[in-house]
Amino acid sequence: MVIVLEKNIAEEKIELIIKQLEEFEFSVHRSTGIEQIVLGAIGVHPTFDTRKVKVLDGVAEVYRITEPFKLASRSFQKKNTEIKIKNVVIGGNEIEVMAGPCAVENEEQIFEIAEIVSKAGAKILRGGAFKPRTSPYSFQGLGEKGLKLLRKAADKNKLIVISELMEPKHVHLLEEYADIIQIGARNMQNFPLLKAVGKSKTPVMLKRGLAAKVEDLLMSAEYILASGNPNVILCERGIRTFETYTRNTFDISAIPVIHKRSHLPIVADPSHATGIRDKVLPMARAAVAAGADGIMIEVHNHPEKALSDGPQSLLPDQFTELMKQIKLIAKVIDRNL
Amino acid sequence: MVIVLEKNIAEEKIELIIKQLEEFEFSVHRSTGIEQIVLGAIGVHPTFDTRKVKVLDGVAEVYRITEPFKLASRSFQKKNTEIKIKNVVIGGNEIEVMAGPCAVENEEQIFEIAEIVSKAGAKILRGGAFKPRTSPYSFQGLGEKGLKLLRKAADKNKLIVISELMEPKHVHLLEEYADIIQIGARNMQNFPLLKAVGKSKTPVMLKRGLAAKVEDLLMSAEYILASGNPNVILCERGIRTFETYTRNTFDISAIPVIHKRSHLPIVADPSHATGIRDKVLPMARAAVAAGADGIMIEVHNHPEKALSDGPQSLLPDQFTELMKQIKLIAKVIDRNL
Amino acid sequence: MVIVLEKNIAEEKIELIIKQLEEFEFSVHRSTGIEQIVLGAIGVHPTFDTRKVKVLDGVAEVYRITEPFKLASRSFQKKNTEIKIKNVVIGGNEIEVMAGPCAVENEEQIFEIAEIVSKAGAKILRGGAFKPRTSPYSFQGLGEKGLKLLRKAADKNKLIVISELMEPKHVHLLEEYADIIQIGARNMQNFPLLKAVGKSKTPVMLKRGLAAKVEDLLMSAEYILASGNPNVILCERGIRTFETYTRNTFDISAIPVIHKRSHLPIVADPSHATGIRDKVLPMARAAVAAGADGIMIEVHNHPEKALSDGPQSLLPDQFTELMKQIKLIAKVIDRNL
Amino acid sequence: MVIVLEKNIAEEKIELIIKQLEEFEFSVHRSTGIEQIVLGAIGVHPTFDTRKVKVLDGVAEVYRITEPFKLASRSFQKKNTEIKIKNVVIGGNEIEVMAGPCAVENEEQIFEIAEIVSKAGAKILRGGAFKPRTSPYSFQGLGEKGLKLLRKAADKNKLIVISELMEPKHVHLLEEYADIIQIGARNMQNFPLLKAVGKSKTPVMLKRGLAAKVEDLLMSAEYILASGNPNVILCERGIRTFETYTRNTFDISAIPVIHKRSHLPIVADPSHATGIRDKVLPMARAAVAAGADGIMIEVHNHPEKALSDGPQSLLPDQFTELMKQIKLIAKVIDRNL
Repeated sequence: MVIVLEKNIAEEKIELIIKQLEEFEFSVHRSTGIEQIVLGAIGVHPTFDTRKVKVLDGVAEVYRITEPFKLASRSFQKKNTEIKIKNVVIGGNEIEVMAGPCAVENEEQIFEIAEIVSKAGAKILRGGAFKPRTSPYSFQGLGEKGLKLLRKAADKNKLIVISELMEPKHVHLLEEYADIIQIGARNMQNFPLLKAVGKSKTPVMLKRGLAAKVEDLLMSAEYILASGNPNVILCERGIRTFETYTRNTFDISAIPVIHKRSHLPIVADPSHATGIRDKVLPMARAAVAAGADGIMIEVHNHPEKALSDGPQSLLPDQFTELMKQIKLIAKVIDRNL
Repeated sequence: MVIVLEKNIAEEKIELIIKQLEEFEFSVHRSTGIEQIVLGAIGVHPTFDTRKVKVLDGVAEVYRITEPFKLASRSFQKKNTEIKIKNVVIGGNEIEVMAGPCAVENEEQIFEIAEIVSKAGAKILRGGAFKPRTSPYSFQGLGEKGLKLLRKAADKNKLIVISELMEPKHVHLLEEYADIIQIGARNMQNFPLLKAVGKSKTPVMLKRGLAAKVEDLLMSAEYILASGNPNVILCERGIRTFETYTRNTFDISAIPVIHKRSHLPIVADPSHATGIRDKVLPMARAAVAAGADGIMIEVHNHPEKALSDGPQSLLPDQFTELMKQIKLIAKVIDRNL
Repeated sequence: MVIVLEKNIAEEKIELIIKQLEEFEFSVHRSTGIEQIVLGAIGVHPTFDTRKVKVLDGVAEVYRITEPFKLASRSFQKKNTEIKIKNVVIGGNEIEVMAGPCAVENEEQIFEIAEIVSKAGAKILRGGAFKPRTSPYSFQGLGEKGLKLLRKAADKNKLIVISELMEPKHVHLLEEYADIIQIGARNMQNFPLLKAVGKSKTPVMLKRGLAAKVEDLLMSAEYILASGNPNVILCERGIRTFETYTRNTFDISAIPVIHKRSHLPIVADPSHATGIRDKVLPMARAAVAAGADGIMIEVHNHPEKALSDGPQSLLPDQFTELMKQIKLIAKVIDRNL
Repeated sequence: MVIVLEKNIAEEKIELIIKQLEEFEFSVHRSTGIEQIVLGAIGVHPTFDTRKVKVLDGVAEVYRITEPFKLASRSFQKKNTEIKIKNVVIGGNEIEVMAGPCAVENEEQIFEIAEIVSKAGAKILRGGAFKPRTSPYSFQGLGEKGLKLLRKAADKNKLIVISELMEPKHVHLLEEYADIIQIGARNMQNFPLLKAVGKSKTPVMLKRGLAAKVEDLLMSAEYILASGNPNVILCERGIRTFETYTRNTFDISAIPVIHKRSHLPIVADPSHATGIRDKVLPMARAAVAAGADGIMIEVHNHPEKALSDGPQSLLPDQFTELMKQIKLIAKVIDRNL
């Protein structure tokens, strides 16, 4: 921690500050500049609240010099984390596509879509059984029945399964039916949920919250890693800003930013980020061009009848076209799909 | 729902749109302006996803004309909701003050603070036993032990108790030890948690999420109301914006906005909104001046040793001064405290 | 304009509202739904302040149904605007690259960079002579001398020139030395400046402000178009959000959004959007993949000595690599470069 | 400047970094912690772009330790700036009220409103003659004629005048007719305009831009101060966030923040911040309670006919009530009005 003192501070004040820092168990060294005195406070306190120093009389600014997360950091692990699930590797050279409906609605729907998705070349089937809906009056998902249908549809088409978990008590259900457990954006800081999946052996995909900085996302990943589960995939799906033409603002720059700060794979979800069908294709191309390790796409055979998120779901033909285009873009940056 | 069609749209397209609307079970009426045709679609679909119409060929804009929430709305209930808990009424003429430490740390601490808070005139003791912390390495609260201490300290000083719930399985613990269950900002859209407190008889205080519009907050309140619990208190505690000098941006305008749109009481939390001790007093005055039904303040006897949020906690003397000042401001707007 | 009235509104109130609307010179038609009454107000008032109706007693919501801009709108002109300047066409099939230093610093610098930029295949040379700097103590540009050097360096390398205008009185200088006049993000709503370039015959590139919605950007373009200059290029360069890892948040989704709403070409500037050299290349790829009609890139031969924005400028080799990569991405979407 | 190096950095890299810092004319001192090495770079470079160091190989983080502004800073001048204009002092113990219409429309209007404003106890008359309007088709103000009417109406009622300047060439007009020159939010970073008023002897009120951090606002004030005009008043009028119920988000916390960082007076404008008439009164109370040195309020005798911003203008009776209430609130914090 670096502490900048106020200009022309009295010597007694400096001594009080140093004394307090020592009580916080830091070792302090002092350096005097032309205009201002700077203190360095050294000690292993990854979670020390720096505001405790900021409020001391005579302190102008305080800077933390260590990252608040450790296991998620690129400086902790230089090599990319690669997560192997059956024939799929997330975080390797291949870009993986997760596709399917927002929610599992019935057997016919999920089997039809699974086939479409598989034929177009995707390897991972998405579909919600527990749905976090803004309104209590909206369709809340089929629950375990939905998970069973999803698994069957995936197995028939040799796909692996990703589905969302909403509360700790359902973690065993997800472990049984899914290959990847998704934590949604609204639950990114639901810490009991993060601890629950941290104790699981199933890989987890953690979506960035609407108001989360990249650092917050990595701190939430740290919860899962620190609880014992090393297989965490991050997902950029748009942040909330003043621009309302798209549902959220798709922060594509977060992709190379995360690749620099962390060894964890990062997937992008243009369907939720934009919320509009005709923006999904260009934004999927952009995410792949920016270096995403995978993309997540909502696909529906009858979007006008979808119980959830139909308007942002691609039609089967549009999805096939998307797969074709991103395959070509992947090549430009020496990746394959 | 009002649907504005594109200029110069062909008659066949209009007919297709009307047909689709009728399939969605709306009754449609059409009116023709100088430049554009507008369709009115009527039907009771509070949760209909208007984007389903926006993606139809020939549609320029779509506006929902009914609010997506009902029970929380001022048009559903004209009279203010008043929540009576022992000798306290939240939402009435009296402005209520909730004060105490961020976290219950030990017996001595909570008993000392409870006495300070009570002597200064507050009626509600706050204190966390389950703490949502950004870092997995930070103090996570004392759990049930903390709740017990909090209850005892409150009872001794004739205070009522508010404390935070983080997961559905602890709802009975909170019911046992607390008079008001707090749902934190990070859990504002943790829907299983909202349903759990919705089934409780204990009043709930729901904090606004960092990225939540007023409408989102009211939708989350709707979850609790629709599950059967009518005693919901809302709480403004700052939203996330580009300004970083304060921890969050305290959206004080939300107070009169919510009073207009909803009958539920609204409390303001300047401690979390600003995150800096010397900003708490002016912002508490501002919130009361804007019409808040209560304020929540962090107070600590030894903030430099606090295990959580010390730098934003008021010292006992500062809190006494705050009580004095807001009492005078309450008078200006014909309220008492 | 569509006006939704409050539920259970008295007939007299409705009549007062209709009377007021007629005084505002609207013709009004009324339609009655199950729960609410909706009024349509028709008349040609593109700039009518709809809040005038929102404050009327008994009005619940008001929606404007006509776009506030006209000349900039896709519904006014279906065909893409193509701007021809010498051998360059902006808004056509070819993606154009504008590259060069943030500021013209001296003859040697601008001639060296112009050659690098030209050899790598770009056709447009950028370089500031009047610099909008946050601090009054920073380098403010060489003024006319800078423009002269820029022109000479461009001519020698058969490039065309884009440079920024900061005040109306310099418009003739820019017309003399530049082929495209740039209006910077901070001046997006400097209306006298917009009118000044609106009266010019030189094409204008208008950058999106830090807090500007797409609609605001199009309204500012409307100022230029309405003043008589049809040659407007828009530029996305990042908006301000809570995320601070990158300098701004690059809103790439604005590219397809603008293509849908307007016929004007849209260029993207990843250098200013990200503010970090190693993020420029992936974000340039992403912008091209999303459909940008051009990109603007800062390039410097000695970025560590640059008087402005060195840290976000590409080194010559990096720029050459960028040109190579985006050429391949352009092909994927059937465009060339 | 404090530079934190990467963990386990090689000695040669450190030497290269130090050499580069010395070339930037800093004197460097080095301190070694348990995990990381920190460099202090000392030298008088208030506008040095710290990103130049951030891009160096081996650098993890860089912190500026000196504020980028000087003349505007509280550390430069401890005492509050008090600006005396005739019988008015802005920045002293008295809270000043600036009131009047958004735009001067005609003689009758401005004389009527000036009388209302004066009778209610305000001392400063506001009114726009040059109007920055989002749409080129909206009323753009009466220009010099408007300024003349404003002056006459003010003189008749013993008020002083504030009015907005939009371009450098009109500065003499404003000096002639107004006592305070207003720079609007959209022009906060219009640097030629800031320099122009910096050379004037007339006091200036500088409004915070929609996307401006407090620090940006102070940097823009620095432009005016550095150009020679010491009489700068700041104005908080709302920032742009994701919340759209109010026109902007009124960042009232900026008031105590600015009082701590700067000696300049700070005024608040609840009319523009909220954009809705019935929110102006509670927000004016809140701003005064938070410590604002003045407030700016739009008042109109016939708001439904106003050519600009009628919906956020108070009716005469509402303004009289506002004056009464804020007078009482001022007393609570030992100020008068």
